[in-house]
Amino acid sequence: MEITTHRKIVKYQDGQFTDIDDVVAEEFPLTIYINDIEFATLVCSPEYLQELVIGFLASEGAIRSYKDIQSINLDDRGGFCHIKLNKSIPTDHFQYSKRILGSCCGKSRQFYFQNDVDTAKVSMSKTTLNPEQISRLMIEMQTTSTIFKETGGIHNASLGSPEGTVVHRGDIGRHNALDKLYGYCVENNISVRDKILIFSGRISSEVLTKAAKIGVGIVLSKSAPTDLAVELAHDLNITAVGFVRGNSFNIYSHPWRIKESE
Amino acid sequence: MEITTHRKIVKYQDGQFTDIDDVVAEEFPLTIYINDIEFATLVCSPEYLQELVIGFLASEGAIRSYKDIQSINLDDRGGFCHIKLNKSIPTDHFQYSKRILGSCCGKSRQFYFQNDVDTAKVSMSKTTLNPEQISRLMIEMQTTSTIFKETGGIHNASLGSPEGTVVHRGDIGRHNALDKLYGYCVENNISVRDKILIFSGRISSEVLTKAAKIGVGIVLSKSAPTDLAVELAHDLNITAVGFVRGNSFNIYSHPWRIKESE
Repeated sequence: MEITTHRKIVKYQDGQFTDIDDVVAEEFPLTIYINDIEFATLVCSPEYLQELVIGFLASEGAIRSYKDIQSINLDDRGGFCHIKLNKSIPTDHFQYSKRILGSCCGKSRQFYFQNDVDTAKVSMSKTTLNPEQISRLMIEMQTTSTIFKETGGIHNASLGSPEGTVVHRGDIGRHNALDKLYGYCVENNISVRDKILIFSGRISSEVLTKAAKIGVGIVLSKSAPTDLAVELAHDLNITAVGFVRGNSFNIYSHPWRIKESE
Repeated sequence: MEITTHRKIVKYQDGQFTDIDDVVAEEFPLTIYINDIEFATLVCSPEYLQELVIGFLASEGAIRSYKDIQSINLDDRGGFCHIKLNKSIPTDHFQYSKRILGSCCGKSRQFYFQNDVDTAKVSMSKTTLNPEQISRLMIEMQTTSTIFKETGGIHNASLGSPEGTVVHRGDIGRHNALDKLYGYCVENNISVRDKILIFSGRISSEVLTKAAKIGVGIVLSKSAPTDLAVELAHDLNITAVGFVRGNSFNIYSHPWRIKESE
């Protein structure tokens, strides 16, 4: 499926109105059913949908590994995904997941302090980076995100190691981009503990929480973190690095993971 | 209350690590109770909280005007707001509001096609703009948003008229910035139909829907709209203008509201 589409628009430049053909990002609604019960509807960029579903279920705590999934039936025309799990999901989990969904621009206090505890782990990562590696990972993330350049409407995220980028995903939803990365790792049984998350947008408390659920030790962003994200990063032993631009960046927490090259 | 705070961070620039004092945006959880029942928790920048609550309730359809509110009791230390309405809220509205909350990075298909119908209005606005007015409104929005320059983590939004900016608000949550504008208008009984919404971020379907709930006819953004937002703009008779930068912009829908100055 295409994640962009073409539209006739009117462009104004230097005193002239011109009809042009422009590229616009798609928004695609995908409804997830677990064991025949409606679980959630995500609005996303329509690519890597299976990874998205797997990553979303893992970060919600509905699955712990790929083995928990008996079958996935994805209807990418209708926008439906039916998942059979090898276990039942308690009814209150559905309630709980609604609250998590409710977290994007406003999150329940309770969720912060109760439910997250199950899935957001204190990082055990010992991976370190030097300034050249930080700069290179950010440049690779920005170079890979060609869709962003075309449409200006996509959040981009990569997982990398000190040696370079491992996987890159983009989505109109910031959470979705992160869930696609997580889904890729869960599906392919790739260890995340030694990886670095590189993100195009702001590090909010929710992005930081998602990073902790994925299990990385370092988060790089070209934008700023919020204060709550910095506090969570302190608590969860995650190194939050913001404003990675050219040859400079800011370290907000656990700076021991960032070392000058020897 | 302060919407930013200071933090000791480590800055890396040109081969040097330096300890500096930096400004970071606050994230503040605010739980809203209607007639003693918990309604929602928003995470927001802690200023204009009363406007935020009023705008949120109006855009959720819980109130139709300021007169529906009997009392507001805001505890801005604890992060609680108790609202008494002059009417009762049906129980299923609470369920419905949870789904709306669930919409930020992923929205229910049902919500799109059912519940929104109650509150998202087809615009009746006859206001038009010329390129100079568009450019000026965007410059004013960007000039006013000083917090953004300090912290890089705030969504900015203004309501304006062809003559200039009427009110400006910023928030770490995009929805919150729009709800604060809406709350300002509801509280002060200001007509919105002739106004223009100027927004710092992408025009997603949800931002467009919120604009329709507020009731404006023109949305200006320095970023891109999504395809679904453009479709909604067509349906709701809203002029969506993206990539307003310097002396150029793109018109995605209902271009008749944008005219060259005579």
